[in-house]
Amino acid sequence: MTVGATGEFGLIARVTARLGSGPTCQLGPGDDAAVVSALDTRVVAGTDVLVDGRHFRRDWSRAVDVGHRAAAANLADIAAMGAAPTALLVALCVPPDLAVSWVEELADGIAAEAALTGASVVGGDISASPTLTVAVTALGDLCGRAPVQRSGATAGDVVALVGRLGYASAGYTVLSRGFRSPKVLVDAYRRPRVPYAAGPDAALLGATSMIDISDGLLADLNHVAVASGVIIDLRREAFVIPDQMRDVASALGVDPYTWIFAGGDDHALVATFPPGTPMPPQWLVIGRVHAGDSPAVTIDQQPYVGPTGWDHFRA
Amino acid sequence: MTVGATGEFGLIARVTARLGSGPTCQLGPGDDAAVVSALDTRVVAGTDVLVDGRHFRRDWSRAVDVGHRAAAANLADIAAMGAAPTALLVALCVPPDLAVSWVEELADGIAAEAALTGASVVGGDISASPTLTVAVTALGDLCGRAPVQRSGATAGDVVALVGRLGYASAGYTVLSRGFRSPKVLVDAYRRPRVPYAAGPDAALLGATSMIDISDGLLADLNHVAVASGVIIDLRREAFVIPDQMRDVASALGVDPYTWIFAGGDDHALVATFPPGTPMPPQWLVIGRVHAGDSPAVTIDQQPYVGPTGWDHFRA
Repeated sequence: MTVGATGEFGLIARVTARLGSGPTCQLGPGDDAAVVSALDTRVVAGTDVLVDGRHFRRDWSRAVDVGHRAAAANLADIAAMGAAPTALLVALCVPPDLAVSWVEELADGIAAEAALTGASVVGGDISASPTLTVAVTALGDLCGRAPVQRSGATAGDVVALVGRLGYASAGYTVLSRGFRSPKVLVDAYRRPRVPYAAGPDAALLGATSMIDISDGLLADLNHVAVASGVIIDLRREAFVIPDQMRDVASALGVDPYTWIFAGGDDHALVATFPPGTPMPPQWLVIGRVHAGDSPAVTIDQQPYVGPTGWDHFRA
Repeated sequence: MTVGATGEFGLIARVTARLGSGPTCQLGPGDDAAVVSALDTRVVAGTDVLVDGRHFRRDWSRAVDVGHRAAAANLADIAAMGAAPTALLVALCVPPDLAVSWVEELADGIAAEAALTGASVVGGDISASPTLTVAVTALGDLCGRAPVQRSGATAGDVVALVGRLGYASAGYTVLSRGFRSPKVLVDAYRRPRVPYAAGPDAALLGATSMIDISDGLLADLNHVAVASGVIIDLRREAFVIPDQMRDVASALGVDPYTWIFAGGDDHALVATFPPGTPMPPQWLVIGRVHAGDSPAVTIDQQPYVGPTGWDHFRA
C-alpha cells in the first residue's frame, strides 16, 4: 500500500501506533503539540534534516537505517552540548507513491535510536512532497550542568575524541564504488554508533568545549577553533587506522586519513579538557589547544592539505 | 546570487545575521544545539512542515509571507495548548538555484512572526533539495498552567472561537481563479493573523479543550469530538459572513459557508468552556457540547454535507 492511498491521518495513525513513550514524555502525539519534561528549567534543542539522494540513498540504506541515522544526527547534537536527550519531533515529507511499510520502518528506526538515549518521539507532521525528506528536532535536558559550547577551548587544553571516525565515510566510498563490504564500514555508513553518554560525562569531567563530528573532523574542529579563538593541533600518530579500513583504502587507492580527517556522519564527539583532567578509557587524546593569532586546525603543526569536510550544497 | 553559490555555511551566516534574539533564548544559533528557558519545567513542542507547491506557491506568496505563515502555523499550535511560544527551530531545504534574497526574506518573515509572540529563532539546519521545504518546530512554556488538550470537552460546555475563519480559504479560491482581490482575503491566505494571546487566556479562563483550526473547522473540531467522546453542535447563525466574503463568493459561485466550515490556514483557536464561563469580547460563542454515543460535529443538530477539511495527501 502507498502513503497516498492511506491519506495523511491514516499514515499518522499507523506511525504513531509504532512509537513508544519515554519517561520524559508527558503528552505525546495526537494533540496540537506535545509536552516534555524539562526539569532543568532550560531545554536544549537542535534540528537536522536528511534529504533523499543527498544524505541517504534508498538503494543503499533500508528505511530502518535511515531512521536510525536521522535520529542519531540529532541526538548526537544534544549529547555534544553535554545534555541528555529527552524527545524527538519528526517532520516527514513523502512522495505519495512511497510504500507505507517504508514509513513504518523509518519510524521504527527513529524510535529505536531514540530509545538508546531514553528519549522518545513525541510529535511530528507528515506531508506529501516530490522529495522524501526527514527533518528531526531533538530536545534534551542539561540536568543542572552548564551547556558545553564550541567557544570555550583554551590554550593548554587537551583535545580528546570518543567514538568512531572515518568508518561512515569509508563505507560511503565503498558503496559508491559499487561494493557492499567490508560490512563493518558499510554498516557504519548506514547506521552510526554514537557515544551518547559520553556527552554528559564530558560535561561532568569539566570539558571546556565539545562538538559532534558530523561534517568531518577538521571542518568541525575548525568551528571550535574559530569560536574559541585558538589553534587546535592534532597528532597524526594518535589516529590508528583499523586493519579493515587500511586494506580497503589500499584496494581502492584512497588515503585512509582522508576518511579520518574529512569524513562525516560517524557522529563521534570531540571535546577539550583542562590539562591534567583524568580521562576515562574510552576517550582518545588526539591533540592540544594552542594560543594563536589566527584560529586554525593543524596536524603536527602543519596545515592539512586535502578535503576537510562536507558542504551540503557543494558536495 | 543563488544559494548554491554561497554554500551551506555562507547561507547560514547570512540568515542568522538577520535573526533577533528573544528573552527566553539562552544560547542561539551557532552551536550544536540551542538552549531555551523552560521555567515551567515542562516544554511544549510541535512541528509543522510547508512544502512548495502544496502549502504555498512562490508565484502567489512572497518569501516573507511564506515565512510568516510557516512560523504562524507552528506558533498557533503552541498557543492552542494554552502555552506561550518561546522558540522556533527551522529546517530549510532549498533548490541550489534559489536566490539568496528569497531565503533572507523567508527568515525575516519567520523572525517577525515569532517576535509577535516573544519567541525567536534559536536554531536550524539548511540543506539543498530539489523541493523547497520549510519545516519549523516551535517550543512554548505553560507558565504553571495545565496544558489544554483536545480530550477535555464535556457535555454542557460552550464552544467558542477567536480569530478569523474562512478568510485564508477564500483568498486561496480567489487566487486559484486567477484574481488578486479582495485584498483582505488574499492577504489572509498569504499571512494568517493568529490570536496567540487568546490561547493562554483560554487556559486561565478554564478551557476544557482547545484546538488550532489549521485544516478546517469541522475537520479539526472532529478531532476534539473524537478525543473527548462528545458531540459538538454548532449554530450556523453564529457565523456572520463578512460582506467582502459574501460578495466574492457570489461572484465566483461558491457557498461561503464552505470556506467557514471547511477552510483551513486561518489558525483561529476554538475552545470549550464550562457553562457560565464569562467570555471576553473577542471570543464568539459558536455552539455547545452534547453527550452522545458516537462522536460527531453537527450544525444545528444536522450532519454537515460538503467538504470538511484538508488532507495533505489527497487535496
